[in-house]
Amino acid sequence: MSMTEHQKKISSKSGLPPGIPVYIGDKKPITTHVTIIQYDEKGYSEELKWDPENLNQVQKKDEVTWIHVSGLEDIIQIENICHAFDIHPLVIEDILNTKSREKVEDFGTYLFTILSKIAIADKIIIEEQVTFILLNQILISFSESDTPFSLIIDHIHHQNGKIRQSGSDYLLYTLIDTIVDNYFIVLEQLEDTADELDIDVLTIMSSETIGHIQSFKRDLAWFRRHIWSLRNIVNHLERTDSHLVNKQTHLYMRDVYDHTLNLSEEAEALRDTAEGLMEIYLSNLSNNTNEIMKVLTQIAVIFIPLSFVTSFYGMNFEYMPELHHPHGYPIVIGAMVAVVVIMILFFKTKKWI
Amino acid sequence: MSMTEHQKKISSKSGLPPGIPVYIGDKKPITTHVTIIQYDEKGYSEELKWDPENLNQVQKKDEVTWIHVSGLEDIIQIENICHAFDIHPLVIEDILNTKSREKVEDFGTYLFTILSKIAIADKIIIEEQVTFILLNQILISFSESDTPFSLIIDHIHHQNGKIRQSGSDYLLYTLIDTIVDNYFIVLEQLEDTADELDIDVLTIMSSETIGHIQSFKRDLAWFRRHIWSLRNIVNHLERTDSHLVNKQTHLYMRDVYDHTLNLSEEAEALRDTAEGLMEIYLSNLSNNTNEIMKVLTQIAVIFIPLSFVTSFYGMNFEYMPELHHPHGYPIVIGAMVAVVVIMILFFKTKKWI
Amino acid sequence: MSMTEHQKKISSKSGLPPGIPVYIGDKKPITTHVTIIQYDEKGYSEELKWDPENLNQVQKKDEVTWIHVSGLEDIIQIENICHAFDIHPLVIEDILNTKSREKVEDFGTYLFTILSKIAIADKIIIEEQVTFILLNQILISFSESDTPFSLIIDHIHHQNGKIRQSGSDYLLYTLIDTIVDNYFIVLEQLEDTADELDIDVLTIMSSETIGHIQSFKRDLAWFRRHIWSLRNIVNHLERTDSHLVNKQTHLYMRDVYDHTLNLSEEAEALRDTAEGLMEIYLSNLSNNTNEIMKVLTQIAVIFIPLSFVTSFYGMNFEYMPELHHPHGYPIVIGAMVAVVVIMILFFKTKKWI
Amino acid sequence: MSMTEHQKKISSKSGLPPGIPVYIGDKKPITTHVTIIQYDEKGYSEELKWDPENLNQVQKKDEVTWIHVSGLEDIIQIENICHAFDIHPLVIEDILNTKSREKVEDFGTYLFTILSKIAIADKIIIEEQVTFILLNQILISFSESDTPFSLIIDHIHHQNGKIRQSGSDYLLYTLIDTIVDNYFIVLEQLEDTADELDIDVLTIMSSETIGHIQSFKRDLAWFRRHIWSLRNIVNHLERTDSHLVNKQTHLYMRDVYDHTLNLSEEAEALRDTAEGLMEIYLSNLSNNTNEIMKVLTQIAVIFIPLSFVTSFYGMNFEYMPELHHPHGYPIVIGAMVAVVVIMILFFKTKKWI
Amino acid sequence: MSMTEHQKKISSKSGLPPGIPVYIGDKKPITTHVTIIQYDEKGYSEELKWDPENLNQVQKKDEVTWIHVSGLEDIIQIENICHAFDIHPLVIEDILNTKSREKVEDFGTYLFTILSKIAIADKIIIEEQVTFILLNQILISFSESDTPFSLIIDHIHHQNGKIRQSGSDYLLYTLIDTIVDNYFIVLEQLEDTADELDIDVLTIMSSETIGHIQSFKRDLAWFRRHIWSLRNIVNHLERTDSHLVNKQTHLYMRDVYDHTLNLSEEAEALRDTAEGLMEIYLSNLSNNTNEIMKVLTQIAVIFIPLSFVTSFYGMNFEYMPELHHPHGYPIVIGAMVAVVVIMILFFKTKKWI
Repeated sequence: MSMTEHQKKISSKSGLPPGIPVYIGDKKPITTHVTIIQYDEKGYSEELKWDPENLNQVQKKDEVTWIHVSGLEDIIQIENICHAFDIHPLVIEDILNTKSREKVEDFGTYLFTILSKIAIADKIIIEEQVTFILLNQILISFSESDTPFSLIIDHIHHQNGKIRQSGSDYLLYTLIDTIVDNYFIVLEQLEDTADELDIDVLTIMSSETIGHIQSFKRDLAWFRRHIWSLRNIVNHLERTDSHLVNKQTHLYMRDVYDHTLNLSEEAEALRDTAEGLMEIYLSNLSNNTNEIMKVLTQIAVIFIPLSFVTSFYGMNFEYMPELHHPHGYPIVIGAMVAVVVIMILFFKTKKWI
Repeated sequence: MSMTEHQKKISSKSGLPPGIPVYIGDKKPITTHVTIIQYDEKGYSEELKWDPENLNQVQKKDEVTWIHVSGLEDIIQIENICHAFDIHPLVIEDILNTKSREKVEDFGTYLFTILSKIAIADKIIIEEQVTFILLNQILISFSESDTPFSLIIDHIHHQNGKIRQSGSDYLLYTLIDTIVDNYFIVLEQLEDTADELDIDVLTIMSSETIGHIQSFKRDLAWFRRHIWSLRNIVNHLERTDSHLVNKQTHLYMRDVYDHTLNLSEEAEALRDTAEGLMEIYLSNLSNNTNEIMKVLTQIAVIFIPLSFVTSFYGMNFEYMPELHHPHGYPIVIGAMVAVVVIMILFFKTKKWI
Repeated sequence: MSMTEHQKKISSKSGLPPGIPVYIGDKKPITTHVTIIQYDEKGYSEELKWDPENLNQVQKKDEVTWIHVSGLEDIIQIENICHAFDIHPLVIEDILNTKSREKVEDFGTYLFTILSKIAIADKIIIEEQVTFILLNQILISFSESDTPFSLIIDHIHHQNGKIRQSGSDYLLYTLIDTIVDNYFIVLEQLEDTADELDIDVLTIMSSETIGHIQSFKRDLAWFRRHIWSLRNIVNHLERTDSHLVNKQTHLYMRDVYDHTLNLSEEAEALRDTAEGLMEIYLSNLSNNTNEIMKVLTQIAVIFIPLSFVTSFYGMNFEYMPELHHPHGYPIVIGAMVAVVVIMILFFKTKKWI
Repeated sequence: MSMTEHQKKISSKSGLPPGIPVYIGDKKPITTHVTIIQYDEKGYSEELKWDPENLNQVQKKDEVTWIHVSGLEDIIQIENICHAFDIHPLVIEDILNTKSREKVEDFGTYLFTILSKIAIADKIIIEEQVTFILLNQILISFSESDTPFSLIIDHIHHQNGKIRQSGSDYLLYTLIDTIVDNYFIVLEQLEDTADELDIDVLTIMSSETIGHIQSFKRDLAWFRRHIWSLRNIVNHLERTDSHLVNKQTHLYMRDVYDHTLNLSEEAEALRDTAEGLMEIYLSNLSNNTNEIMKVLTQIAVIFIPLSFVTSFYGMNFEYMPELHHPHGYPIVIGAMVAVVVIMILFFKTKKWI
Repeated sequence: MSMTEHQKKISSKSGLPPGIPVYIGDKKPITTHVTIIQYDEKGYSEELKWDPENLNQVQKKDEVTWIHVSGLEDIIQIENICHAFDIHPLVIEDILNTKSREKVEDFGTYLFTILSKIAIADKIIIEEQVTFILLNQILISFSESDTPFSLIIDHIHHQNGKIRQSGSDYLLYTLIDTIVDNYFIVLEQLEDTADELDIDVLTIMSSETIGHIQSFKRDLAWFRRHIWSLRNIVNHLERTDSHLVNKQTHLYMRDVYDHTLNLSEEAEALRDTAEGLMEIYLSNLSNNTNEIMKVLTQIAVIFIPLSFVTSFYGMNFEYMPELHHPHGYPIVIGAMVAVVVIMILFFKTKKWI
């Protein structure tokens, strides 16, 4: 039941003139590391330092260059990298503001996209902003944390597969595919929570259960908003007519798009479930109250008349002939039994027993 | 009330690099059987083995070739068939992943569509993914289970009807029509369930009934999602400008489309019914509680004052003149009768009796 | 409250190969009668037999020919009529299947439309499928029952009005206008039902009332679906660029379209009312329970303490000095009166009296 | 709380052949009066009789001619006026049918629009159909009642403002602006009602309050439907490319359109309020029941055990040692006090006090 | 919890002929002050008096001129300023009517936009209408209150940043950005209120809590309407093809648009929360009632039978052998204990303890 408090996305920059890069995030920014990976079908090289000198060299070669920046602490260096590729100041601002909206923008010479990567650790969801800048044969990526794509790097390094034979757009596709895959894991977590709640609503009648349902609904709403953005971005990438995205790659993007549609359908189904949970809880509660009322009424309806009778013959009038009649006592007992029988028959009629 | 647990559609492939065909499904894959049917107005032949050699021969003739593959176990053979027709790797992946989204895609030289076929056996719905690849005069179909289209095969074999005179697109239409017809059977099942629940909500006041309503709503939501996909796919096939679909066949596709619209209208009507069921159940429960409260109140309101009176004269004060009065007893009895009469009149006023 | 059980629209044809005309309906088909009416500004003739020989003659003349077929039993004759005008097999199938979707289709040389005609008899709604085929100066109409358009026939026969001066498209307009008018009568019936229910929800607290509301909502949903189809069809006819519909007639079609918009607005308003009915019923029920609880509580709260006091002095302890005090009895009575007064003041404070 | 019963809009013409003008309305039609106002920047003339002879004269002059017809009794005269300007029979029918849908239609040589004018008198809303026909420099208006536009006539007569310098389209704008202004007055009335209900829902717990809320919701729905039509019509007039509406006037129409948007926003806000009213009422009722239950439970829980104790010592067993014990009585009293204290502490724990 | 009563936006101008400027607002208009700021990359000048003479001079120079008018009291002066730039009378009317709809309009030579600026002071939201007229290198702004943009003025004066190097469209962007930033502050306030209510609904069961939720929902609805308008306006400015907005500035407008999307997403999430609050409150209330009923029923069900027994042996029959039996008393006590034990076991079965 423990999901992340979705970080409040309100910019704390209010008041500052626009266009000045400042790191905005609520986690402590992690030390910036730059990894420059260069590969083609034949070779693979990896460098761990950003050097503009190398860059010129890079652009001459016909291989794919992937510049990955992890950690957003070192604003100066990030600005340097961006300036080297002539990135617009507003884009730099978005990269550094980890509360930017997920989006994709086409600047002609480069495509810029912001995504939210989610991972799960100890039932806690960790949300992280990842930004990509796709240039011709170059991909620059920025992540808040350390190593979100180490598996992919490993894959490029050791396997001479399709990725080594394709351009930077296919690399982008692979990275986005990894991000989308992670959403499925979170979806599974949400489905488990839904299953747990499905049992809870029938057994635990307390405001705690309502709290859990509500928190589940909030998590789900948060998830659906992300899915929605993701879907729009991937859809845009699939349909883009940018020369940066190869025609072949469009097919792969369409595949990722299908996955986001799957995610979105599953999330809608979960939403229906969540609505149902509340309904079940409430109607079950009503059932319960109804049941309690029935028991109370049965007991009361049987014993109140009986008690009246006993109380009646407890009166202290001097002249109550029944009291002195030798059969008075057994007759009264008989009358009481009759009352009980009548009441039980009445309940049978009303189908309360 | 027993519907299939709709299989979770989450890809378990997360982590694997894209483009490598793996069978993804939760049933044990069934042994692959290939049936190659060739027919024209004059002749009909059936072969049970896939042989690329025959293929060339096939393409020369002017007849319709239907290659049906049932069971998805033999990945190698499926890949071979697909490669023979130059099918894109992502399509092969979709064929093998039985949790693919229902969809239709136009690849120029072939049309690719994924559908869900549902059948009913012992009140259990069996869902099965069926994929079609429509080429020029050739139709390739893949199904998870053994023989979903045996009736059609029989029909082609023995009847020299319109199907024998038409192309592979008409064959596709016939197969889709069969799939749509099966949806009507499931719809009838759902309608029966709704009728049963309509009686239950008025008679059985238990959390079980709520459970049944909720499970019905989930089944319905699952059904509506499928109808929705089906409708979109058929609509796309009706409007496609692909040269693979004959102009004549468009009219037939429109007819199937009409059927999916019917399905969708009926499903919407069922959804309204489902919403109503919950309303009826809850208001009936409230009625019930109200009724119980009335009985309790009536009994309590009549007997509580009476008991007070009797209890009053059960006090042991030495100086209570009434107790010693010779008419005390009958007067008290009279008073009690008066209280009862007044209370009953009061109930009449309140319309509680 | 008695509306027709809306016939289930599920095709029972599942399994049959498409394109073979079979009569599908749940009423016994009525014997087929063909009426051929021919008129122009000057003359009017009526024949009661279908004879393809006459037809050629017909097409030579410059008058309007209306072929009305009532009763769908004689499939052979209906097929003959359709073949004479080169009607597509799927259209014939739709004519004979009385569970077809309402729709309009343009086949170039003819316009084909299916409508639902509803009439009221003894508070029972009778639904009937009517199909029209509009050709150049010829209108063919099919109805399930005997004489839905006798008034119009009479009107054409005896009055030399606009209809006699106009073409077959104006005739189609007149017939559709008649059908739409009938919907207003059903709407009035629904409004009467809503008015009755408006009183019921405040007076009759039983599950029967809920049943009535739900059945009203279903009837309304059924009505709204029909209105919706009707509206789309008339809108299509208004906007069609078919040469079969005269430009002048478009204005009249727009007028009918306005009527369907009226119908649809009224139906929406009724739906709001229906939603409100349930709300009123439920809140009234809650009011009622609340009221009952108040009475119970008042009685209990006054008498339970009093009974305690009397019971207290009914204890048989040997040493209870109050019992022997000469003023004990009146003092206790005074205390009881005080309790009652305090309780009533308490109720006043809580605004329960 | 007293709003007009919105007249049922169902045409009572069902059965009549289309195209024959009949007055349809539920008020007695008022005697027809024709006022012909002619003005330009320099002069103003007013005539109270319709004379086709004058008309020719009119059309020659370069001034604006406003023919206002109030009261729809004299069908012949209305037909004459319409025929003089070549108005389509269906338009005449719409003018006379006071239950026509609000709409605007462009007939090329003239624009035809139907609006609903609402006024308030003694908290009763009076709805009236107003129709306008805009020709070149001529405006014909029809109203059901006597003098809806007397203020505007006065204004034209005495003030040489913009209206005197503009064409018939500006006159139309002025009249529509007046109609829209009246909607604001009704909106204020609805807002007052909402404010009253806001207090009622917290204080008056009766089915009457629910009735008031529901009738308010119906009034609001009726109002919103009108606003919706009004908005569409004005939007159409703003965007029309008819040569009858001057480019300058479009700006003014946009201004009226802005007002209708304001109306519509306010009406939406009111709808939210109306939804909230029901919620407040119902939850307040639940609060109330809860409160009553608490009191009942508190009293019962305190006194039922006490009464048990007293009743216990009211038993007549011969051998009950406590009864004869000299301290029995005070000990029992002490025990009772202890029970009360324990119960009160229990309530404190449960936060019921 | 204290938000502004959103001012009723109904025009009080009803009845007045259109086109005559009158100040409409419900605050006392503030004395009009005109500030003329002129700047370019090199220089900055500020004048506090409107003088049409200066204007000509202005237009000659190649710098940006910002004419800010605060306070709308001096209608004559405002009209003069507008006339100097040939502003349409309807625009002047909108400027003076502080209840105008938020909007943007393109008049070719100038862009006109109305926005609502909101600020917070002592938990009270102050809403203020701000209007901008963007001409070539000139920006005219009108505000109701004194100094909403003093920070920006200061910034232009002292810092030689991007704003000094850009045109009047960038100035407009900066001002709108400031306005949007203020919305984030109000959003935070609303989020705080939601958090407070989240605790209240679980602890305070009174109609006051419902009142707070409802007032929160109204505030939120009011906020969402503003966000919606804001978003549309900024979107329009981003996409406008007016020559007045520089291509460079479009990117900045898109950035503001992103912020409004953020606002709108957050507001939607808050709405979900608000819906949830009511649900939690109501179900918690039901829980509470259920809990109370349980306690009442437990007490009643245990003590009512016990009291019956004691009352039974309080009867005064002469011949009740048990009373005289030496073990009668302890046997009865034993029976009572047995009853209590049975009842508690029954409760355990029902899971009420």
